[in-house]
Amino acid sequence: MAKKVTLKDVAKHAGVSYQTVSKILRGQIQVTPEVRARVQRTVEELGYRPNVTARNLRTQASHLIGYSWQPSRQNFLSPILEEFEQSVVEAAEKRGYHILLFPQPEGTDSSKTYEELVYSGRVDGFILSDLGYDDRRIPALQALNIPLVAFGRTHCDDCTYSFVDVDGRAGVRLVVKHLLNQGHERIAVLAWPEESRVGTDRLSGYLDAMNEAGIPVDPAWVKRGAGEYDYGYAAAHELLALPARQRPTAIVTVFDLIAIGAMHAIDERGLVVGRDIAVTGFDDMPVIVYLRPGLTTLRQPAWDVGQRVIEILVDQLEGNTSEARQVLLPPELIIRESSQGYQPS
Amino acid sequence: MAKKVTLKDVAKHAGVSYQTVSKILRGQIQVTPEVRARVQRTVEELGYRPNVTARNLRTQASHLIGYSWQPSRQNFLSPILEEFEQSVVEAAEKRGYHILLFPQPEGTDSSKTYEELVYSGRVDGFILSDLGYDDRRIPALQALNIPLVAFGRTHCDDCTYSFVDVDGRAGVRLVVKHLLNQGHERIAVLAWPEESRVGTDRLSGYLDAMNEAGIPVDPAWVKRGAGEYDYGYAAAHELLALPARQRPTAIVTVFDLIAIGAMHAIDERGLVVGRDIAVTGFDDMPVIVYLRPGLTTLRQPAWDVGQRVIEILVDQLEGNTSEARQVLLPPELIIRESSQGYQPS
Repeated sequence: MAKKVTLKDVAKHAGVSYQTVSKILRGQIQVTPEVRARVQRTVEELGYRPNVTARNLRTQASHLIGYSWQPSRQNFLSPILEEFEQSVVEAAEKRGYHILLFPQPEGTDSSKTYEELVYSGRVDGFILSDLGYDDRRIPALQALNIPLVAFGRTHCDDCTYSFVDVDGRAGVRLVVKHLLNQGHERIAVLAWPEESRVGTDRLSGYLDAMNEAGIPVDPAWVKRGAGEYDYGYAAAHELLALPARQRPTAIVTVFDLIAIGAMHAIDERGLVVGRDIAVTGFDDMPVIVYLRPGLTTLRQPAWDVGQRVIEILVDQLEGNTSEARQVLLPPELIIRESSQGYQPS
Repeated sequence: MAKKVTLKDVAKHAGVSYQTVSKILRGQIQVTPEVRARVQRTVEELGYRPNVTARNLRTQASHLIGYSWQPSRQNFLSPILEEFEQSVVEAAEKRGYHILLFPQPEGTDSSKTYEELVYSGRVDGFILSDLGYDDRRIPALQALNIPLVAFGRTHCDDCTYSFVDVDGRAGVRLVVKHLLNQGHERIAVLAWPEESRVGTDRLSGYLDAMNEAGIPVDPAWVKRGAGEYDYGYAAAHELLALPARQRPTAIVTVFDLIAIGAMHAIDERGLVVGRDIAVTGFDDMPVIVYLRPGLTTLRQPAWDVGQRVIEILVDQLEGNTSEARQVLLPPELIIRESSQGYQPS
């Protein structure tokens, strides 16, 4: 392997000081045309590679993309975000970019960090995930005119930034129609609270499908609560305690872990998931495939989201477009045992 | 907390445009000495922090750490590595470093990339995970004298680089002793092939515990194979087909998904996991906690590994030490139903 050529080598060969070479290459001092030409020639002869940091200062592009998410508490991980991140890294590499990680713990204000990162030339643009209902990162980055693309969106009706999101409403509509086709009519839904845009979006898909089928929704069937397994477990027990003619025969949930909680509650009541009461999830988390009975769920196209996010952001960075682009990708319905074999009693 | 001074503040106080300040600080435009002096004075008066890239040029440190792992095929994710990454990012931030992602697909040679990254001043050092039996990244980085710390290790007996690893041997020894205490004697093990250093390490823990207990190991009990769920499912069926007096009453596995495959095979034979045959895993993957019956397993201290890796690397980067440090952390035995309630028939 050839020894790396340094600035010192260039200085020695050109007969000037290290500082002079450095400053010339950074455009920081005025020298005679002869000296400038000699240094430039030496750089070429020796094959000196200008360092990345200096090049960044000149080209104004770092070829780094910042990725900002909200780290959850230890031990709670999101396979969806992991798949998204892997996809983003893969797509970015193909277009000559690397990903720099910027976790943003919930409730912190990092707008100063963003400003410094971008204006200092360290990062060209940002990818955001874990968008809150009223995420402060969006206006902070927009105010600084920093290119951004989000996975997900805030509660904006007419969003002014680029995002790629999964169409939860279309997904849940799909799964409810599947349940209707299996003969279910008394279908309940376990959603997240009103301040959850994702929860509201998915709940809308349930209401769409029930409306289209002309089935009046009993308010007792619609539950909204925070949480995962424990919420699903408790809410399902409440649904199962309803009078027989009101009790749902199917429970749609907005998250796989809520569904697992519900399945355990059904099991404890001596009922059989699928045959007596159908249950569905959302996400298709990796280990879910090994559950028995298998869980019918909606698979998030996290890989495709990552690919599209990079495509949009790099197009923006490279000037092909500056207008906000908004993409909704449909989740895939995965039918397993938990929503099959229903036998009306 | 004092409000951070921005470029805009400097511009306002100096009575020039934002662009002018930015360009002056980057050495990109020539202005009158008066304007330059005024901007420079304002920078000092307001305490504006010079930008990161310029600072890097001066200090020769990027404060970026590269993280290199082997991306797996789409849809196969590792919760352990995700937890490790989250921990690394958190620990790095606390010490003033950011993480730059460098996936290295298996079989590719990235030594040129490493060289360019470090010599160009973009990255100060590297973290590696997914170490192969004979990982080429280690000698490549060592030849370039680039600081590195690995999560895991190669097959080196006397490793010359810093690593933090989970003591799989001690962990499996612990779980086998637990099974012995439950009254099991015919204990089988499902490990990975010989070229898997991790598989060999964990298998050694099984052999240690059996030796210590003075129980001769029947070769039919020791299986080595590649794979996850399918391997566990097939291998367990083979074990269950052994003659009654040879058939194991407990199956130790080196991975949770192998254990789940084994549990399903046991179930299919009409046997009860725990009561008839114990099964144990390794990793404690996040969704595992919702399996019924619960799986006894060894929890990887991935968070602690991440914290230690950063501690060692930053100490190296900041010159506190240059000697290789090697740390083994014990996994935690998590006892659930799959290894309890054994009733010898």
